[in-house]
Amino acid sequence: MTDPTGALGVAVIGYSFMGRAHSNAWRNVGAFYPDVPPVRLQTLVGRDGARVREAADVLGWAEAATDWREVVTREDIDIVDVCTPGHLHAEVALAALAAGKHVLVEKPLANSVAECEALVAAAADSPGRALLGFNYRRVPALALARDLVREGRIGRVQQVRLSYLQDWLSDPQAPMTWRLRKETAGSGVLGDLGSHAVDQLHFLLDEHVTEVSGALKTFVAERPGPDGTEAVTVDDAAWATLHTASGVVASLEVSRVATGRKNALAIELYGTTGSLRFDLESLNELVLTQTGDARTDGASTILVTEPEHPYVDAWWPAGHVLGWDHTFTSQAADFLRAIASGEPVHASFEDGLAVQRVLEAIETSHGRGGTFTDTGN
Amino acid sequence: MTDPTGALGVAVIGYSFMGRAHSNAWRNVGAFYPDVPPVRLQTLVGRDGARVREAADVLGWAEAATDWREVVTREDIDIVDVCTPGHLHAEVALAALAAGKHVLVEKPLANSVAECEALVAAAADSPGRALLGFNYRRVPALALARDLVREGRIGRVQQVRLSYLQDWLSDPQAPMTWRLRKETAGSGVLGDLGSHAVDQLHFLLDEHVTEVSGALKTFVAERPGPDGTEAVTVDDAAWATLHTASGVVASLEVSRVATGRKNALAIELYGTTGSLRFDLESLNELVLTQTGDARTDGASTILVTEPEHPYVDAWWPAGHVLGWDHTFTSQAADFLRAIASGEPVHASFEDGLAVQRVLEAIETSHGRGGTFTDTGN
Amino acid sequence: MTDPTGALGVAVIGYSFMGRAHSNAWRNVGAFYPDVPPVRLQTLVGRDGARVREAADVLGWAEAATDWREVVTREDIDIVDVCTPGHLHAEVALAALAAGKHVLVEKPLANSVAECEALVAAAADSPGRALLGFNYRRVPALALARDLVREGRIGRVQQVRLSYLQDWLSDPQAPMTWRLRKETAGSGVLGDLGSHAVDQLHFLLDEHVTEVSGALKTFVAERPGPDGTEAVTVDDAAWATLHTASGVVASLEVSRVATGRKNALAIELYGTTGSLRFDLESLNELVLTQTGDARTDGASTILVTEPEHPYVDAWWPAGHVLGWDHTFTSQAADFLRAIASGEPVHASFEDGLAVQRVLEAIETSHGRGGTFTDTGN
Amino acid sequence: MTDPTGALGVAVIGYSFMGRAHSNAWRNVGAFYPDVPPVRLQTLVGRDGARVREAADVLGWAEAATDWREVVTREDIDIVDVCTPGHLHAEVALAALAAGKHVLVEKPLANSVAECEALVAAAADSPGRALLGFNYRRVPALALARDLVREGRIGRVQQVRLSYLQDWLSDPQAPMTWRLRKETAGSGVLGDLGSHAVDQLHFLLDEHVTEVSGALKTFVAERPGPDGTEAVTVDDAAWATLHTASGVVASLEVSRVATGRKNALAIELYGTTGSLRFDLESLNELVLTQTGDARTDGASTILVTEPEHPYVDAWWPAGHVLGWDHTFTSQAADFLRAIASGEPVHASFEDGLAVQRVLEAIETSHGRGGTFTDTGN
Repeated sequence: MTDPTGALGVAVIGYSFMGRAHSNAWRNVGAFYPDVPPVRLQTLVGRDGARVREAADVLGWAEAATDWREVVTREDIDIVDVCTPGHLHAEVALAALAAGKHVLVEKPLANSVAECEALVAAAADSPGRALLGFNYRRVPALALARDLVREGRIGRVQQVRLSYLQDWLSDPQAPMTWRLRKETAGSGVLGDLGSHAVDQLHFLLDEHVTEVSGALKTFVAERPGPDGTEAVTVDDAAWATLHTASGVVASLEVSRVATGRKNALAIELYGTTGSLRFDLESLNELVLTQTGDARTDGASTILVTEPEHPYVDAWWPAGHVLGWDHTFTSQAADFLRAIASGEPVHASFEDGLAVQRVLEAIETSHGRGGTFTDTGN
Repeated sequence: MTDPTGALGVAVIGYSFMGRAHSNAWRNVGAFYPDVPPVRLQTLVGRDGARVREAADVLGWAEAATDWREVVTREDIDIVDVCTPGHLHAEVALAALAAGKHVLVEKPLANSVAECEALVAAAADSPGRALLGFNYRRVPALALARDLVREGRIGRVQQVRLSYLQDWLSDPQAPMTWRLRKETAGSGVLGDLGSHAVDQLHFLLDEHVTEVSGALKTFVAERPGPDGTEAVTVDDAAWATLHTASGVVASLEVSRVATGRKNALAIELYGTTGSLRFDLESLNELVLTQTGDARTDGASTILVTEPEHPYVDAWWPAGHVLGWDHTFTSQAADFLRAIASGEPVHASFEDGLAVQRVLEAIETSHGRGGTFTDTGN
Repeated sequence: MTDPTGALGVAVIGYSFMGRAHSNAWRNVGAFYPDVPPVRLQTLVGRDGARVREAADVLGWAEAATDWREVVTREDIDIVDVCTPGHLHAEVALAALAAGKHVLVEKPLANSVAECEALVAAAADSPGRALLGFNYRRVPALALARDLVREGRIGRVQQVRLSYLQDWLSDPQAPMTWRLRKETAGSGVLGDLGSHAVDQLHFLLDEHVTEVSGALKTFVAERPGPDGTEAVTVDDAAWATLHTASGVVASLEVSRVATGRKNALAIELYGTTGSLRFDLESLNELVLTQTGDARTDGASTILVTEPEHPYVDAWWPAGHVLGWDHTFTSQAADFLRAIASGEPVHASFEDGLAVQRVLEAIETSHGRGGTFTDTGN
Repeated sequence: MTDPTGALGVAVIGYSFMGRAHSNAWRNVGAFYPDVPPVRLQTLVGRDGARVREAADVLGWAEAATDWREVVTREDIDIVDVCTPGHLHAEVALAALAAGKHVLVEKPLANSVAECEALVAAAADSPGRALLGFNYRRVPALALARDLVREGRIGRVQQVRLSYLQDWLSDPQAPMTWRLRKETAGSGVLGDLGSHAVDQLHFLLDEHVTEVSGALKTFVAERPGPDGTEAVTVDDAAWATLHTASGVVASLEVSRVATGRKNALAIELYGTTGSLRFDLESLNELVLTQTGDARTDGASTILVTEPEHPYVDAWWPAGHVLGWDHTFTSQAADFLRAIASGEPVHASFEDGLAVQRVLEAIETSHGRGGTFTDTGN
């Protein structure tokens, strides 16, 4: 730490969608969480010098840079925040950990189990703290849901329903993009949206999936590209049944062709004495059912904007709703607090590895195709 | 037809839950559908003479009887309506068809594919009309959904989500019943609730499922019975992925442990240009999305109570909601109209066979257990 | 009572919308409420002999008649059910009471306070029982709401919001009808829909309104009629503030130009420790809020279809929703039970008088126009 | 403008709730709206030197100050943003306008019509631009609603329903605060919440209210204070009927005792061919009804998070919800754009005066009490 004011120097690698969201978090974390160590928005890193300089100006960074290798070893950088495309996560994060930096990696941890395992090992060996950025863990409603599960408010969880539905590929004429090519995207909707859903399962239940069965589907096999029709090589939708060691069964469904669903991560937890439901499109709400009085039992919609709710106290008075981006700011606060205290912080890289294992197992299960049964119709 | 007034004589076999619901339909069909042939509520049949006589009085039948074999051949009976437990459906319906009667069988058609095949054959050979009572086909919102799909309002359907969730077994201490024994119930939630969901898929898409993959689960293996703890031998929940010949993929999830869900048959159809959603707990509503104008596209909740909506004109003025039991009355009307006109009526016995094949294929698929993959966690 | 079987003979006066709804109730009450005295559907009365005969056949009546004066004194008639237009209620009901019959009057009790007072007096003097048919008192969700208020579940009620919105006059070109002429309709939306809302306030709070302030509005002054443009002489919308003796303040808003609202009677009760909300378009639901734990307090949607809920046990198993017409059947059951037991039955004619007084006071208040204040804009 | 970089120097007067919200807006406006003139967060002003210095540090201000009179005339200050309590608005804003500064005043404009009139006159005479901070005008869903009204999507608006309900005074034992004393708060819920609702009416319809009738109520006359029981001297709830010159009638209801409502500003606009509905607790949604096809007409819930929607393009990709505080940032952007362009910006001080006139007219109307009518019950 070289800052005379004691502020931690931050570098964000990447300046598109996620780089913007993380920059916003670093710019605001001190205003809402004054108790955490202060930060200095030092360096924004990107490949295109002119564009990253412009982004750095707009987003509030002291400087721009193009060589992440140089930046992650600099003495005035304490925290390296990796917002590159997924296939570069491992390389950057490993270098930063080797340099002893605190490292925040945007989800997914990496695109393969092997890379994830390397990252877990590196994090264990480094003096730096490591955080995986599954930002939905900082949605107040979901943090509340986890607390309520742990407190036994819905009894023992038996069945879970997970879905994450979008619709930007509903139209068969929607054009080809790099996200629909296996070589650039790694996977389709399963990796992109399924990872969030699986991580939430792990987060909410505090245990990992041990067995899966699943299938993938590409509804539209070819799409118009700049050079004519091109084959789509990733999945448009995926389904799986997930089992945990304690006997919970969760269904998973993800899609990019669910017309009318914009960003619908829906989670339902059914326990022996209650249930919880959440939909990301109504981010400030949590629905709780508790059994007890047949006359008045119902599905209770909690507006999760009270000071008693997780994270809310840092923001505005009761009843003032938060948005999607507030989750990143709260995530940065938790990371900074962990850096100061030495306490654990989640999601850990182990959590990221666990998610990647589940996703690969679903793909493997699909490849076997064993259980498809002709119905005779 | 021996009635001097020309009314069709009806016999209902069974007088518990479904017998009551069907009796209500026969008692009211003429008042709401005056255009269909009149009926005479002739005979209610049950095993316990005293109780069936009391039920016949209360429910408006001219007489009670205990021997269904005798009743189904009587000359003054034109329609035999089979509301017995599922394992007796085939025997009663086959006898009635052999006697040339019009036969309405409450769902499921029978408990095995073999029985269903026999019934399909018998229906083809009989002069009587045959109807399978999947009553949700007469929910106005679902009939409207089918019409909208056929009119292309949501484009080509790609993905479907089906679930039917209840919660009467959430509590592990909920007692043993005949419904939880394989020998008496045939199957668990898959047959009971899954059959409705699969039939709706067939109904809404007008095509049958050709391939399935699925799994079953019994969360609570033993329950308290009158003579001590007893093993539960049917499923508490089931999951499947269903494929149709045209390439639609549907997920299916059914459960009796989904705490807070009372009778939640939820259906979502995602097409290339729109979507449809329905929940039986909000029986009078249908949600329609149609793409076209990004500024105003939304999920439109239609209150399906206008005279322009299917079946509604027979009932009350616009805005007056219908209930669950109205579907049986409309079903009876459709059956009577088909008897008079000779036109086809659905659900046919073939539809029932198709559902049974899907359910058995799911069970078979589960038995193989092929695709479960260890995630390494 | 002249029926050899001991059944009570019923005559319904009127066979259009309400006559059909009441006929349905009498035809079905015994099947769902076998504990109440049996009824005989004796006579349906209307002015047009041919049409009333056809209606009697369809609706299940033993006979049709055209002279209500003769019918209401017949010995084989025990119950007279008045479903005529409102301006005839008083005359028919007074004759029936004078003949000692039990009398059910569809709401409103009458079109003026004076007529209502006469009916209250006649009911007090007659050996017959008198019931005013505010059928929404038998919506299970509203009956439950009343019970919960009485049990103190929401504390002391302070503020109430009542609205009843429809939209069949939104279009300024919607044609003239008798309902829009003062001389035929008596009043506009205030009387038609406001009466239901005010009665619910009385029902739910168990006290009457003592002070009102209000205003009426006719948005579309002229509408196309068969003989050219005609003046609309009743209100399209009305607003009022209602005060009870105990200090509750309720707002009331009724409209026929609320585009998109089909039959939206919405009620919100705010108490010191909780609240209740209801919307007739979701007839099977009641929303309950109770304070106590800031982390989990929420608005709980109760699906009012459990056997523990009012009236539900008479119908179907848990989770099977009821419709609008079931309220009339439950109303008939309550009336028959009161006839047998001698216990009071609500709504009483006093309740009807109280509603009429409130409606007239709102009209009077509007006439004064005293509080309109120029805002200077 | 003295900044060498050309950035506009901002001073915010006040650092509690609104000061924090406005600071957040100034800190972030450049990152999301890079097209507007840059700003420099120069001075945060408060009475308590130590506390304002701490707040300035946390919230990102270059310096703190305690003497607003000195600050508003400084050369390096271009924009004065008034976030003091309402009774100080006029004095500070008049001084800033006299010094030729651009002035943003948090709502309400002032606590009296007279003060508002003085501010309108001063704004007209000043070279500085003036903006009144009714932040809900920058809720994307409400800005979209206004656009849709102007485009005629719901026809001619006839009836409007406005309510703003909170519940922090439901409990009669909730303690006394300065907000419940007339001398410190000016008014109760009518001024605090009613002002937002009335401004939305003006905003959405683009016309002002010209006539009102209303009433106020204090449900709990005395509350526990630090020195014993104290009289509550402002209203807990208020009701009004508002009329515009074009013939629209709007109902208004505001309350602090609506148990279960946290921040529920609900707006419903009913036009001749459609309707719009909004609830601040679901800030990202707008419900649109349009008539046209009786089979598919419904209430369409638009998730207002598409790039085609007002303000959204500045933020995140489609489907990522915004929160309450984003409205202030968008408001700051609109103000800066207007400063640069010389184009008008709303809400104007005239808009603030119009709201204050309506609120005072409601109080006057209540004082007359003329239309209360005894119902005779």
